Amino acid sequence: MTREIELRPLTATAFAPFGDVLEPDGQPDKMINEGNCGRFHDRARLFFGPGGEAGISIFDAGARELPYRFDLVERHPLGSQAFLPMGGTRSIFIVCPDEDGVPGAPLAFLGNAGQGVNILANTWHGVCTPLDDRGVYAVVDWIGSEPNLQEYRFDAAWTVVG
Amino acid sequence: MTREIELRPLTATAFAPFGDVLEPDGQPDKMINEGNCGRFHDRARLFFGPGGEAGISIFDAGARELPYRFDLVERHPLGSQAFLPMGGTRSIFIVCPDEDGVPGAPLAFLGNAGQGVNILANTWHGVCTPLDDRGVYAVVDWIGSEPNLQEYRFDAAWTVVG
Repeated sequence: MTREIELRPLTATAFAPFGDVLEPDGQPDKMINEGNCGRFHDRARLFFGPGGEAGISIFDAGARELPYRFDLVERHPLGSQAFLPMGGTRSIFIVCPDEDGVPGAPLAFLGNAGQGVNILANTWHGVCTPLDDRGVYAVVDWIGSEPNLQEYRFDAAWTVVG
Repeated sequence: MTREIELRPLTATAFAPFGDVLEPDGQPDKMINEGNCGRFHDRARLFFGPGGEAGISIFDAGARELPYRFDLVERHPLGSQAFLPMGGTRSIFIVCPDEDGVPGAPLAFLGNAGQGVNILANTWHGVCTPLDDRGVYAVVDWIGSEPNLQEYRFDAAWTVVG
């Protein structure tokens, strides 16, 4: 089995099994601010499990480059996790289907500047991966004191190629 | 009374009575992702009132320029509202102290690329105001069916100057 992953475009349809793409896509649900602003309403399937609540944190992540090699993914059983890039950087969003409690072969999506994602609760995903530049992200996720991080290390590394 | 407002720097201290500045400021609370990413943990005073819940929407707002003239502000009694600029644009964030249920003289803060804000529930604020370029924002606010918008129009317009 090849361990190379082709980077694919980040589209709502392709990403839907893993989460939501957050961008102004299509027609806004309504115009606000006296017609100057389109509101695309309630576009994320958020979940915040018991014992905690929604919070906003800031992630400041070092640049990664292609080819990007990794062997670690993680998931959060207690809540969804949205990554909202704030500085205009591009991102690699890596996700995996679940196969009986362990991650299957990863997929890698290229997020352009202005594209965020919301990753569904309990969905395997890669770490924060800004492409070519340092990336600052607002992260909306579950805040609480119970353990909410499951990590999985693959036996062999995967490599995302351009 | 002058109706001109000087644009001031967006700092956590100056903005605190109205909300939170969301940016990587100071030392991260912890390092994650094998040391590649700083997490500034739970930095927003979120509130989502009864009858609704947290959601993420996308705002796509037309460019504004200085001097920026406005007479309309608004507030949301049922929840906080975070504006997270996604494309690298700068923003003007306008807020007002409350004076017996009506807004007092506005303040205008210049948000640089990579600076978001969370506006506290029931706090008077201006509409979405990207500076010089179109702005795309992820907005974290209360989603529900009850009325959550109070608007106030000043008798005379204010002008934000650079």
